[in-house]
Amino acid sequence: MQETTRLAGLIQERINDTLSHHRAALAPLGPDAHALLDEAFGFLTGGKRFRAQFAVLGFRAVAPLDLVGELSPELDRVLDAACALELFHAAALIHDDIIDRSDTRRGRPAVHRLFATMHEQQGWMGAADHFGLAGALLLGDLLQSWADELMNRACDATADRGAARQARDHFNRMRSEVAVGQYLDVLEEQQPTFAGHEEQLERSTRVLVYKSAKYSVEAPLLIGAALAGASPEVEDALSEFGLPIGVAFQLRDDQLGVFGDEELTGKPIGDDLAEGKRTVLVTLAREHLPTTQRNIFDGLLGTDLDPEQVMMMQRTIRESGAVERVEDMISRNVERATESLRSAPVLPDAAAQLMVLAERAARRAS
Amino acid sequence: MQETTRLAGLIQERINDTLSHHRAALAPLGPDAHALLDEAFGFLTGGKRFRAQFAVLGFRAVAPLDLVGELSPELDRVLDAACALELFHAAALIHDDIIDRSDTRRGRPAVHRLFATMHEQQGWMGAADHFGLAGALLLGDLLQSWADELMNRACDATADRGAARQARDHFNRMRSEVAVGQYLDVLEEQQPTFAGHEEQLERSTRVLVYKSAKYSVEAPLLIGAALAGASPEVEDALSEFGLPIGVAFQLRDDQLGVFGDEELTGKPIGDDLAEGKRTVLVTLAREHLPTTQRNIFDGLLGTDLDPEQVMMMQRTIRESGAVERVEDMISRNVERATESLRSAPVLPDAAAQLMVLAERAARRAS
Repeated sequence: MQETTRLAGLIQERINDTLSHHRAALAPLGPDAHALLDEAFGFLTGGKRFRAQFAVLGFRAVAPLDLVGELSPELDRVLDAACALELFHAAALIHDDIIDRSDTRRGRPAVHRLFATMHEQQGWMGAADHFGLAGALLLGDLLQSWADELMNRACDATADRGAARQARDHFNRMRSEVAVGQYLDVLEEQQPTFAGHEEQLERSTRVLVYKSAKYSVEAPLLIGAALAGASPEVEDALSEFGLPIGVAFQLRDDQLGVFGDEELTGKPIGDDLAEGKRTVLVTLAREHLPTTQRNIFDGLLGTDLDPEQVMMMQRTIRESGAVERVEDMISRNVERATESLRSAPVLPDAAAQLMVLAERAARRAS
Repeated sequence: MQETTRLAGLIQERINDTLSHHRAALAPLGPDAHALLDEAFGFLTGGKRFRAQFAVLGFRAVAPLDLVGELSPELDRVLDAACALELFHAAALIHDDIIDRSDTRRGRPAVHRLFATMHEQQGWMGAADHFGLAGALLLGDLLQSWADELMNRACDATADRGAARQARDHFNRMRSEVAVGQYLDVLEEQQPTFAGHEEQLERSTRVLVYKSAKYSVEAPLLIGAALAGASPEVEDALSEFGLPIGVAFQLRDDQLGVFGDEELTGKPIGDDLAEGKRTVLVTLAREHLPTTQRNIFDGLLGTDLDPEQVMMMQRTIRESGAVERVEDMISRNVERATESLRSAPVLPDAAAQLMVLAERAARRAS
C-alpha cells in the first residue's frame, strides 16, 4: 500500500510540474490566460488515476520498477506516459461534459460551468453558457496537446526505438477509438427507437468496448508494457487480461450511472437515465419488459427526470433482473481475466498487483 | 508554377492517404463512424494550404528538396509535417466555428452545421444543433490526434534526433499558443467596454500575434526548417521574416473580415463585425471617432447585423482612415520581412519563393 500512496504522489507531482511548466511558457500571453491554467490545476487534482496505474503496472509486468527509492530513468519515463494518459483523460472528460450537457463532474461543477460562472461573476457581455463552452473546449484542446507532449517525452527517452514506436501506436489507436466510440455513443442517443434486442445489445456493447473498456484498461496496460519493450506474447496476454477488466469496469460504470451514490460518484443520481444513455444495463432491462411498461420507460429515457421518475426507472431496471445479469457479466469478465492472467508471461509481483487493481476497477463505488 | 501545382497535388494526396488509412483502421467500429470520415474528407478538400507551403519552404530554406522527381525520403517527411499542419488547422477551424457560432466556412456550411443537417434529415431525436456541436467537437479532436501522428512520423523519420526534437518543440509551442490566443480572442469579445486606445491596441495585437501571425507563418517555417536541421541563426532569420509576414497575413484577414467579397472569402460579408471581433482594424477605427458615433458603433459590434448596418459600419471604418492605416501596416511589415530576408542565411531559391508566397499571403482576396 505504501507503494500505491507513493505512486499517487508521484503522479500528482508530475501533473503539477507539467502544468507549472506550461504556465511559465505561456507567461508572454499575459495574465488573462491564467484562468485556463487554474481550471486545469483544479480539474487535475482529483480522479481515481486508474489509467496511470494500469500504465505503470503494464511496465512492471515486463520489467521491474522501483517506486520507492530515487527516481530512476525508467520510472521517469513511465510517469510521463502515465500522466499523458491522465491529461488526455481530463481533456476527454471536459469535452464529454460539453457533449452530454453534464453540469457536474467529480462532485464539482463541470469545467464549462466553471467558465460560465466566471463570466456571470465578472458581469461580461454575451451569453455566459456559450463562453463556458468556449473555455472548456479550448482547455480540452490544450490538455490534449500537453498529453501528447508528455507521451512524446516518454517515447523520446526510450532508447529502444521499436518499443517507443509501439507505445506511440497504442496511444494513437486509443485516441482515435475513444473519439469515435464517443461519437457512436452520442449517435445512439439520437435514435428515435431502439433497435431489436440483439442488434441493440451489439451496438451498446460496441460503444462500451471502444469508448471505455479498451481506453480505460487495455490501452494503458499496453502503453506501459510497450515502453518496457514487451514482446507480442506479453502484449497479447495483457490484452486478454485488460479487455475483460475494461468491460467489467464499464459495466460497473453503467450500474453506478443508474444506482450510484451521488456523494461517491460526484454525479447526480440516475445521470445516465436523464442523458438517455443506451447502456448494456438499459438494453438488458428493456429486453423482457411488457410493451406498455417498455413504452413508458423509453418515453422517460433521455428526458429531464424528477427524483420520483428516477426511482421508478431504477425500480423497473431492478425488477427486470438486469442488475443481476450485469453483476454476473462483471464477475464472469473478472474471472476470465483472472484465469488468463494465471498463465500469462508477466512478472509475478505485477500479476498480483494487477489483480488488486482489477478488483478495484470492477467493484468500485465511485 | 509547375512546382506549386505539383506540391498542391502531393499535399492533397497525402491528406487523402492519411484519412483513408484511418477509415480502414476504424472499420471495426462499424459503418456509423463513416460520417466522421466523410466530413473530414469534405473539409480537407479545400483551403489555401499556406501553412503546408510555408513548412515546405522552411525546409527548402535550409536544404534542397526536389518536388518534381520521384518522392525522396526528405520530401516524404516534409509532406508529413506539412499535412500535420493542415490537419491541425482543420481541427482548429472546426472548433473555432463552434466557438464563433460561424455557420459558413470556405463557402460551405460549417462542420457543426453539416452534422446538424444530417440530424434533421434523418429525423433523429433530440436537438439537431447540439448533435452538430458534438459531431464537430469530436471530429476536431480526431483531426488533432491525426495531425499529431503525422508530425510524429515526420520526426521519427528524421535521423538527426536534435532536429526532430526541435521541430516537435516548435509544433508544441504553436499548438499551445494558438489555443490560448483563441481563448484571449473570445475573452475580448465578452468585455462590456473597450479598454483605452493604447491598451486595447496592445490586447488586439497580442491576439493577432498568437492566434494567427505566429501560427500561420512563423511556426510552419520553423517546423520545416528544423526538420532540415536549421541552425539557430537560420531559425532566427526565418522568425525575422515570418513574424511580420504573419502579422501582414492577419491584418489582411481583418480587412477581409469586414470588406471581403463573400464569393471569394466563403464567409458572410462583415462577419467579424457581427462576431464582435476586436481586431486591430476595429481598434484603429474607433480611435478618433466622436463619442456619439463611437457609441453607436460599439452598440452594433457583436450583434446580428442587417446588410444596411454592415454597410454603415464599413463606411465608418473607411472614413476613419483605419483601412489605409492597416494597409500601411501591411506594407511596412512586408517591407521589414523583405529587408530581413535580403541578408538571411537561406538558400537563394527558397528566398525567392518565400517572397512570392509572402506577397500572396499579404495581398490575397480570400
